[in-house]
Amino acid sequence: MASMSVRVGGLPGIRRLPAYLGVLRHLREEGLETISATSLARRAGHPAAVVKKDIEMTGAAGKTGVGYELDSLVADIESFLGWNNPHEAFLVGMGNLGTALLGYDGFRSHGLDFVAAFDSDPEIVGRTVHGVTVLPLGKLRNLSARMGIRTAVMTVPAPAAQPVADLLVAAGIKRIWSFAPAAVSVPGDVVVQREDLSAGWAELLVRSRQVENGSG
Amino acid sequence: MASMSVRVGGLPGIRRLPAYLGVLRHLREEGLETISATSLARRAGHPAAVVKKDIEMTGAAGKTGVGYELDSLVADIESFLGWNNPHEAFLVGMGNLGTALLGYDGFRSHGLDFVAAFDSDPEIVGRTVHGVTVLPLGKLRNLSARMGIRTAVMTVPAPAAQPVADLLVAAGIKRIWSFAPAAVSVPGDVVVQREDLSAGWAELLVRSRQVENGSG
Repeated sequence: MASMSVRVGGLPGIRRLPAYLGVLRHLREEGLETISATSLARRAGHPAAVVKKDIEMTGAAGKTGVGYELDSLVADIESFLGWNNPHEAFLVGMGNLGTALLGYDGFRSHGLDFVAAFDSDPEIVGRTVHGVTVLPLGKLRNLSARMGIRTAVMTVPAPAAQPVADLLVAAGIKRIWSFAPAAVSVPGDVVVQREDLSAGWAELLVRSRQVENGSG
Repeated sequence: MASMSVRVGGLPGIRRLPAYLGVLRHLREEGLETISATSLARRAGHPAAVVKKDIEMTGAAGKTGVGYELDSLVADIESFLGWNNPHEAFLVGMGNLGTALLGYDGFRSHGLDFVAAFDSDPEIVGRTVHGVTVLPLGKLRNLSARMGIRTAVMTVPAPAAQPVADLLVAAGIKRIWSFAPAAVSVPGDVVVQREDLSAGWAELLVRSRQVENGSG
């Protein structure tokens, strides 16, 4: 059933859900109790039909003339995304990006909880960064088994991507959120989500140049 | 001509260029002088035909039997993205995400240089974060005029998005990279690029559940 409903809004729809949550959580803090799809759509900046389809995917249902109850809509989206349960995760690669992500408290409200950080550089190992002690890569497998960790965020340079992915797979990790600018091969039961923090910045500059040139 | 060539690879192609750059810069550090589209494609994890089209967009040309010269390919991509020139930028919103982004040194090699940070919270104003002093929002317009700033990164909550965007527009900002979970209206000569750092995390968890359920 999950797979059937996912097809409705698809992956682009899933990627929009966090923004809806951001809007909804805020409105709830302000004391709002219900919201129409149209109002949510306007605030989130997507067409109402798109927002409705995306929300359908989560199983949430609105009431005619009333809209969605905020509490249950937030709960349905959180539960669909798996953000209602904390996912204990390892962070591998304590360069600038790894350090920045480890310091971003916002992930905790998205169910992402960094419990340990790893690096291969002896200069960095042993330091405490944002309250987390950096461990050597050699300790990853053992700690993963002991803590039952299934999720890892990988912030390593391109050449380290495959060796680190291999290590994570051997340690039983099933979900890898990779910020490395390189492809990695993993077995079929492991999911890799690649991310590029600079992709949006690249797009902004090129779009901006098109507007300046009058061709946007 | 820029707009014509942009059509070739389109915006998804632009979003892939930073990853190619990451791979290429690293290979150059390792002393490599040329690379074939096939080899770059394998390392970046995209089909060779896609990589070739994306690179065409930048105006770079390879030589039959040799491939691309690394130095000139890196330069062509950087120049196409505008990353060869530093873009002085303001950061508005010094919550967790703003603080994390300000601390990410990697942006500097992508031509993004934070010269000032702003917040509305008197508790935060006056602090020095990652070497940058946090200024009150009231100083933004004047400083922008004085420094000729055209670029801003916005890391504010949903309700602050439109007021802050209005302030940025009034201050002459033409490019806004917005991490706020809300739509904003701006005049036609201003480009807003919306970003959601949690979209990939949402997608990873849902895809992972599909694989677990055997429906991936």
